[in-house]
Amino acid sequence: MIRFNCDYQEGAHPRILQKMLDTNLVQTIGYGEDEFCAEARAMIQKACEAPEVDVHLLVGGTQTNFTFLAAALRCYQGVISAETGHIAVHETGSVEATGHKVIALPQVNGKITAAQVDEYCHLHFSDGSHEHMVMPKVVYLSESTELGTVYTRAELQEMRAVCDKWKLYLYVDGARLGYAMASDACDVDLPFLARTADAFYIGGTKQGALFGEALVIVSDALKPDFRYVLKQNGGMLAKGRLLGIQFSELFRDGLYFELSAHAHALAMKLKAALVEMNVPFLVDSPTNQQFPILTDTVLDALSEKYSFSEQQRMDEGHRAVRFCTSWATQEAQVDALISDLRRLMGA
Amino acid sequence: MIRFNCDYQEGAHPRILQKMLDTNLVQTIGYGEDEFCAEARAMIQKACEAPEVDVHLLVGGTQTNFTFLAAALRCYQGVISAETGHIAVHETGSVEATGHKVIALPQVNGKITAAQVDEYCHLHFSDGSHEHMVMPKVVYLSESTELGTVYTRAELQEMRAVCDKWKLYLYVDGARLGYAMASDACDVDLPFLARTADAFYIGGTKQGALFGEALVIVSDALKPDFRYVLKQNGGMLAKGRLLGIQFSELFRDGLYFELSAHAHALAMKLKAALVEMNVPFLVDSPTNQQFPILTDTVLDALSEKYSFSEQQRMDEGHRAVRFCTSWATQEAQVDALISDLRRLMGA
Amino acid sequence: MIRFNCDYQEGAHPRILQKMLDTNLVQTIGYGEDEFCAEARAMIQKACEAPEVDVHLLVGGTQTNFTFLAAALRCYQGVISAETGHIAVHETGSVEATGHKVIALPQVNGKITAAQVDEYCHLHFSDGSHEHMVMPKVVYLSESTELGTVYTRAELQEMRAVCDKWKLYLYVDGARLGYAMASDACDVDLPFLARTADAFYIGGTKQGALFGEALVIVSDALKPDFRYVLKQNGGMLAKGRLLGIQFSELFRDGLYFELSAHAHALAMKLKAALVEMNVPFLVDSPTNQQFPILTDTVLDALSEKYSFSEQQRMDEGHRAVRFCTSWATQEAQVDALISDLRRLMGA
Amino acid sequence: MIRFNCDYQEGAHPRILQKMLDTNLVQTIGYGEDEFCAEARAMIQKACEAPEVDVHLLVGGTQTNFTFLAAALRCYQGVISAETGHIAVHETGSVEATGHKVIALPQVNGKITAAQVDEYCHLHFSDGSHEHMVMPKVVYLSESTELGTVYTRAELQEMRAVCDKWKLYLYVDGARLGYAMASDACDVDLPFLARTADAFYIGGTKQGALFGEALVIVSDALKPDFRYVLKQNGGMLAKGRLLGIQFSELFRDGLYFELSAHAHALAMKLKAALVEMNVPFLVDSPTNQQFPILTDTVLDALSEKYSFSEQQRMDEGHRAVRFCTSWATQEAQVDALISDLRRLMGA
Repeated sequence: MIRFNCDYQEGAHPRILQKMLDTNLVQTIGYGEDEFCAEARAMIQKACEAPEVDVHLLVGGTQTNFTFLAAALRCYQGVISAETGHIAVHETGSVEATGHKVIALPQVNGKITAAQVDEYCHLHFSDGSHEHMVMPKVVYLSESTELGTVYTRAELQEMRAVCDKWKLYLYVDGARLGYAMASDACDVDLPFLARTADAFYIGGTKQGALFGEALVIVSDALKPDFRYVLKQNGGMLAKGRLLGIQFSELFRDGLYFELSAHAHALAMKLKAALVEMNVPFLVDSPTNQQFPILTDTVLDALSEKYSFSEQQRMDEGHRAVRFCTSWATQEAQVDALISDLRRLMGA
Repeated sequence: MIRFNCDYQEGAHPRILQKMLDTNLVQTIGYGEDEFCAEARAMIQKACEAPEVDVHLLVGGTQTNFTFLAAALRCYQGVISAETGHIAVHETGSVEATGHKVIALPQVNGKITAAQVDEYCHLHFSDGSHEHMVMPKVVYLSESTELGTVYTRAELQEMRAVCDKWKLYLYVDGARLGYAMASDACDVDLPFLARTADAFYIGGTKQGALFGEALVIVSDALKPDFRYVLKQNGGMLAKGRLLGIQFSELFRDGLYFELSAHAHALAMKLKAALVEMNVPFLVDSPTNQQFPILTDTVLDALSEKYSFSEQQRMDEGHRAVRFCTSWATQEAQVDALISDLRRLMGA
Repeated sequence: MIRFNCDYQEGAHPRILQKMLDTNLVQTIGYGEDEFCAEARAMIQKACEAPEVDVHLLVGGTQTNFTFLAAALRCYQGVISAETGHIAVHETGSVEATGHKVIALPQVNGKITAAQVDEYCHLHFSDGSHEHMVMPKVVYLSESTELGTVYTRAELQEMRAVCDKWKLYLYVDGARLGYAMASDACDVDLPFLARTADAFYIGGTKQGALFGEALVIVSDALKPDFRYVLKQNGGMLAKGRLLGIQFSELFRDGLYFELSAHAHALAMKLKAALVEMNVPFLVDSPTNQQFPILTDTVLDALSEKYSFSEQQRMDEGHRAVRFCTSWATQEAQVDALISDLRRLMGA
Repeated sequence: MIRFNCDYQEGAHPRILQKMLDTNLVQTIGYGEDEFCAEARAMIQKACEAPEVDVHLLVGGTQTNFTFLAAALRCYQGVISAETGHIAVHETGSVEATGHKVIALPQVNGKITAAQVDEYCHLHFSDGSHEHMVMPKVVYLSESTELGTVYTRAELQEMRAVCDKWKLYLYVDGARLGYAMASDACDVDLPFLARTADAFYIGGTKQGALFGEALVIVSDALKPDFRYVLKQNGGMLAKGRLLGIQFSELFRDGLYFELSAHAHALAMKLKAALVEMNVPFLVDSPTNQQFPILTDTVLDALSEKYSFSEQQRMDEGHRAVRFCTSWATQEAQVDALISDLRRLMGA
């Protein structure tokens, strides 16, 4: 079985494991206050060209999202998200479990617009008395989105302006941030994000680490006491060094970007082949997740050799499915898939 | 100013106040364990033809909703509601504040259907692994809805069947239950509800009481320990007698139904007059809330003498607004409104 | 049965009921924005000699406590309380249900000291890294306490200084504030509280109202958006007028203080008689709650005619019990109790 | 610097790292449903002689505690713990953050007794009306405790009986379970725990793993839907394989017990030397944490070469401190410490 169903089915880049081996018996203090974490934080600040940001290293994406939101929101405040946002549908209500509503807005290709947020706030919060509704306080975006699409600089700047207008924080879920930044369709880089968002995280789990997400807090208002919230929500790893080691390796010599580019190139190779076969897509994704629409016959045949994830039934006979590449995907695996697709499609 | 903007702008029916006066210095024990509450509970059980139901008397509707849901849901479960449901939009996220997601479904005229709930559950919970999503456990309906519409026996029976299929509790918000039951369009009565829902509440605040909602718990699974949840959520009134007195008066000699019929008749008189004037409606409401669409000119003129609530802008020049009647509305007030409308409309 | 077991077993002072009757059909807007609430707020601001404080009228004490604390605390912060504090033991964990720890300190006679709070903070928060513990942010006191004792101005000023030192809010639960202020042992008045606490509430339920507690928010940091928290927690009464009417009557012509003095005088009469009979006390209470230690024989005989509440078994043969007077207690009731006690004690 | 301040300052046993390397590019499905996790679960079931228990693998101890308790408790229920319990003091109120009170009982040497729990329940829950208090539902113990002490089989059986009497769940925090079981003072083993507790966890983080705690759920009532709670609380690791690999290595060929015995032997060597030097102890700990009371002079001198954790100031001039050994401690490190202690003590 060759797995394309997600981008977290292998371990980690060998350099990370090697560094763990090399440092295994070095004694450090715990909870992220060790020298490996310090190095990782400094490297991320440097990559962001933002020495003043706070960087916290957490274990997983759901944890990072609800922990950040628990810290950012007062009890009567909520977070605006696309209705397809990961926090809205795939985190078992973890945000609500911390007491906060996810205010879901309709999406197009996994994205919401600044105009939508502005309209929502205008409709509900433009005159005096709104205390019967949840006050929106954070806008949550994913870069890239659940559907592989990306926000551009222009779109994020518009969203920033609307957030300033309504006193909202802008938070970007970067579980696949590297894969987004590797795309030609995405002109965003880390320094831009650090100038534009109030907080964002740089995903490690799907991007070459065993696990780990680096939360970057830009806004001074969000910095104080964050480690309390981290501990309270189970996000303060005893052997924090493991996160420090991983992120310092990922950001040493540009490995993070190199791995992202690798995954991206293979996804584009697959996409080009599908386009050539005239396969339609659920959405035109410029990143490492591809959502072709194929016949049940083809998919059933493919599933004997490949795994992919089910996205949506289109009609009797066709389904949209998801193929992901990752830092660990081998070109031969993609070539085999393309070749089998060609054979099955009679192309 | 004659107020039609809501149905809770006066005090209480005089019989209730008189009974409070008469019993004022009677000493009772607190927290709803007094003889007045016992009487009210017995009268409600009798009206429901269901001696086995538990009845709890709470102060307000929001409190009743979140307290019941906090008791009914485990931490990973949520409640399905129309996207216009009171818990979804007008309770400042009180359900989320207790840790639970409101799963909002699209509505038509304020209602959701059994088929929608079935489809949602089928789509997300028909095969093995759903633990990344909030598990639906309660279906929340309002009788009547925020838009004045009603669920019929047939609709509630279908919803019951779907709830049984997916092991969901059916809960009915009856803030305006009397007004619903007074409508020709609604064939539901209390015994039917007590046979069909797992829990529901009989609204007092909008229906003749100073305050108070009578929560009826039908399902045995929901009965144990409810008073703990009541106390924890601030819903256990020290002088519970005040609730007992009000509900025993409302259910003595059918006062509750009489007051509901009064409000209904006046709403229908207003509706008939509007129809006669060819006024369109946002929704065809058969209950005490009416949503005519009128011109800004007419509404601005009306607003000097009458209050009503803003519902929705329809276009440049027209708005849908809400007029409510209640147990306290006087026929002369409705007649004055109709007369002024006729004059302003040139009808 | 003559009831001394608590101070909330009658209805309300007749002037309150009369005013409700007189205004019953006056139409007002809801949710505390009516003219009765405005008047009550202004009267309380005046009584506090503090026109700048915010005043919110809630229904009950538990609700007031957890709503205020939910608004005042961030998710990682907690509230310091005497281990006997009402929030620590008698509110079914309502503070914890909003996500916050009650940090319970040992008490003497129901009270904690400034020195204790200082020591706790010094021990746990005097050096750099405390993020594994709940950060204390509010000190909760009751005036009078669960054991009838009072805090003096000097004690509250010391607590204020410690709160300033550690950046804590000082919050006073005044469910029995009038009864405390009526005592010779208590030199606190409303203007002093409004200068010293960050927030406090003036109890109505136990002090002449049907229900209602007036929360006074002094600190500017605690004022914004409080009505959202009020609504979210079920504390925004639809017919807020009922609270406005009650508090404006209580503060008109000093009724609140008059009723408090009445209860106090009767408690002192009972206490003096008990002292004369050489009855020991669990605690020397200078307020409306008295805690004599009596023999089981005497208590069993008394219980045929009087109700009182059980406080604590002292030894085989003796129990401490609680007798409360209130605004509604009649002198004849106290005289009867004293006379029966004398007879049973053979005094 | 030689570190004795805690038992989680190195990486993992080399066999674990080697297995991670060997399997690094094996593709697996995520979220703990892979074959490595299946193997680990089976090995733990076998070690517990309990094929029917559920085993879930989580990342950290705080996370395991609050996730389990969130699943086990209804909203009005709480957990009984020693006042020194980890959940009571060192987890930043994470249990309260999920809405539940930690009911703290006084401890002796870090332990609470069955008699204490029985008395607490008897005092507060033996007659009819307790709904003003949090209902206790879980008893939380640590094996070994924060002070290094252990519960014996006899003590746990007594606690089990009291739990049965009051319908409480018995939950054992086993962050240092191996170290406890390695002690002569502790006659508990895994099969005994699986027969006696309703749930417990087998600590990995402090016992040879990079991270990871294996939660064993014995009681059928606690099994359903646990993975929802796991996901909601951020405890479902995307690459769950990492947990599976670690626990299967730890339980292969008895490595877990071997590492525990190693740490224990070194702790006993240190303890024996301290006893020989007539050093008093804060508590007589039979496990890997030792709490000697030493002079400031000695400790200041030691601190230049060794790290230890501060436990408690005893008087002017003496402090109790904590030295931990672990699976990674080398005998030479302990020998050096003993030798330096002897020199500094003039022994």
